[in-house]
Formats: sequence, C-alpha cells, structure tokens
Amino acid sequence: MNPTIELLTAHRSIRAFTPEPIEQAKIETFIKAGQAAATSSFIQACTVIQVNNQQKRAALAEYAGNQPYVVSAPVFLVFCADMHRHKIACDLHHADMQSGFTEQFMTATIDCALFAQNVAIAAESEGLGIVYIGGLRNQIANVSELLGLPDKVYPVFGLCIGYPDQNPEVKPRLPLPMVLKQDTYTDAQDTALLADYDNEIREYYRNRTGGNKEMSWSEQISGMLVKEARPHMLSFLQSKGYLLK
Amino acid sequence: MNPTIELLTAHRSIRAFTPEPIEQAKIETFIKAGQAAATSSFIQACTVIQVNNQQKRAALAEYAGNQPYVVSAPVFLVFCADMHRHKIACDLHHADMQSGFTEQFMTATIDCALFAQNVAIAAESEGLGIVYIGGLRNQIANVSELLGLPDKVYPVFGLCIGYPDQNPEVKPRLPLPMVLKQDTYTDAQDTALLADYDNEIREYYRNRTGGNKEMSWSEQISGMLVKEARPHMLSFLQSKGYLLK
Repeated sequence: MNPTIELLTAHRSIRAFTPEPIEQAKIETFIKAGQAAATSSFIQACTVIQVNNQQKRAALAEYAGNQPYVVSAPVFLVFCADMHRHKIACDLHHADMQSGFTEQFMTATIDCALFAQNVAIAAESEGLGIVYIGGLRNQIANVSELLGLPDKVYPVFGLCIGYPDQNPEVKPRLPLPMVLKQDTYTDAQDTALLADYDNEIREYYRNRTGGNKEMSWSEQISGMLVKEARPHMLSFLQSKGYLLK
Repeated sequence: MNPTIELLTAHRSIRAFTPEPIEQAKIETFIKAGQAAATSSFIQACTVIQVNNQQKRAALAEYAGNQPYVVSAPVFLVFCADMHRHKIACDLHHADMQSGFTEQFMTATIDCALFAQNVAIAAESEGLGIVYIGGLRNQIANVSELLGLPDKVYPVFGLCIGYPDQNPEVKPRLPLPMVLKQDTYTDAQDTALLADYDNEIREYYRNRTGGNKEMSWSEQISGMLVKEARPHMLSFLQSKGYLLK
C-alpha cells in the first residue's frame, strides 16, 4: 500500500481537538483540493461556509443535537449544495432555468460529497482529524436561516477539522464480499457474512467500552431504522427549490 | 503541498486507457479504501458492482449515451446506494423498517459518493486514471434491471479505471471566493468573479481546441439548464422505495 492508500484506510472520526489553530492558507489549500474533485457536467454545485463566529457555532452545535466539537473544533465548515450561482449564470444569458428536478438535487448533493471528501483527505494528509456533522440536518431550516442561504442552496453536512486530541481505533467495515459484487447483485451469502460481521462488531464495542456496550451492526441498524428519519426533509428541500419533480 | 494534496489537486478525468489490466487484489484494496470513508451513523449503504461481462459493458456504454470507455476501461464499477442489507438486518431482529424517507435517500447517496471518491483517489495514487459515469442515470431503470438490483438499491454512478492513454490538462475551477464564504452566504462579488472566470474558461477551451470551441462557464451552464434534467428520475427512485416522503 502506498502512503495515500494507507491514509485513506486509517480514517476514523475525531471528535476531540487540541486548541492549536489552523492557518487560513492551509484551509484554502484544502478547499482548492475539494474543488479539484470530479463535478457532474462541470456544474460545480458546492459552496462552503466557514463558520468562525462563536455565537453561530454555538447555535449550530445545538441544532446538530448538542455536539460540542462543532464549537471546539478550530475549523468548522458547512458544505452547501448550491445552484444559486447557476441561476446567476442563466440570468446573464436570459436563459429560462429549468429547476426542481430530482436529478439536479442528486448532482448538486453528490458534487458536495466528492468535494468534501477531498477536503477531508487533504486535512488528514496534513495530520489533522475530521468528523462529518450530518446532524446539521436535524434542524436544517434553522441552519439554512442562520447562514443566510438563498433559494437553491441547502446545507448538506458540516465538517469539523483540527489536530486530534484522541486516538480512536479504526471501526471494522462490512466484509468485502457484501460490498463488492461481480456483474450481478446477489445477496446469497449476505446473511451468513452478516452474522460473522455482527460478532466482529459486538467484540469491537466490548473491547472499546470495557464490556459496557455490546451491540452488533444489525442490532444498531435495526434499532435506528424503526424510527422516522428526519421527516421534515422533503418539505424543507422543496421550499429551497429542490425535489419538486 | 504534500504529495496527497498534490495528487488531489492534479485530478482530471481520463477517458482513454491502455489495455494494461489491473490486478484484482489492487481493486479490492481500492474498495477497502472506499469502505474506510466516513459513513452516516455507520449505515454503510454502498455496494459496488464490478462489471466484467463484455455484453453488460456494451449495454451500459449505450445506456450512458454511447460512452465507449465504459467498454474499453480495464475496470468498470457501478456504485449503488443500498438499503437492501438494512432490510435484512431489520428482518433478523423482527424490526419494522421505516423506509422511503428523503433523509435516507440522502445518507445512502452521500455514503456512495464518499466511498467512491476514496476509490478514485486510491486508484489515482497508483498512477491510474478515472472518470465518473453519471450518464448511467440516462437509462437508470435499464441499468438497474441489467445488474439485478433489488428493492432499495439504485445505481448512483459508474467509474471507469485504467492506466491513462491521454494526458489532458486540469480544468480551471471557480474562483475561491465564490465557493468559500465566511459565516454568511453572500453573492455580492459573485457576478464580477464569474465574469473573470468566464474569460478564463473561454481561453481554456480556445487553447484546448485550437480555437474551435469558445465557451464560457456561464454559457455552458445556461445552455444545459434550459433543458429538462432526466425527468424520469423521481418516479424511478420511488419505484425503488426511495423519496416517498
């Protein structure tokens, strides 16, 4: 394995940071690395809001379900799917922009994810730690208002960046044959593979918590999926001009 | 810049490949690097179909709007958002899975994008070239049927991987202040910045095509956005159990 693949494979989320600041020039380098990611039909539909204001940070931490590292991380970024600038481009050419298509929601959201993953890797390659904050979507309308996001811009997730003040283990992932299939989707082996993996994850939590937590992957997932998942999402996104058709 | 950031920043899509094959062990290393990416609430909702069968490759190339490199690339992967395995997990615990939420569509799709970007970077770090194939979504129902995707599994995009047989330039991205904003979204400078960028892109195409193509970013975008964007998408995704509420 080369050093880049080693870096990718060693990822774990970091939720405790030292107070050491990060130079702005470095952040800008990470953002440029993010921009360099592939973008669907060159649409470049990602905008990043760097949140420095401490009151805004505190509000965002609360919106995310009280995640204190949203405040304590030296850098906090919000990745926004952005088709507002495409409206500017269309207006410039007196073109009647066709919007609201589900496909556009997908390309803008995927653009953000590819961009963000490059930022995350760039940061990690400099010895920094990161954690994605999907919890911003708990109160997505409040996040959007706090950051002044216009029509056709929505916050996809946040990203904390800072020097790690913890050293968690890498969490074991699903067995390879469950996630890499040849030519056709088949789940013939998946139940057996899942049983092995469930044991592995149970063991992982047991070791990590000194025996206090014992939960398999399927238990964790099934416990989560019996509940509604952010049921406000569709109407919020539609209010922003997405997923209308 | 460290070598990983240099690699990220040097990305350009590769659409012509030498016939040199890629060892399967290497592909598996890339997939493991993909799995190591962050995953929302540990949901691990990405499955990759590696398409080796040449007839399937030919069909996929056609579905993608006749992109011949879908056939000629040594490796072709289809990244699928997959909540089928979560249904297996729920059934195992007699849990009544709540599905169809827009939020779940987002987490599964974002999981795939983060995973795929790690695969892309891992491949590039080994001197390979890649191109994402969003064109699979042109005929997404046919792609889904060809690969035998069950309920709650949908193809997000493809990825061609191989040794580059071309050396295109890096395409200039939007000016940094358009994509990195501080504390609040503002577009006050964007129209002026866009004008500069439009000139830069016009120049890029002029040089690249020996003067045959001259098009600014805003022209390209406005030309694209006056058309419908894959209007079949919402009903297809709903047929797969996504975006129902």
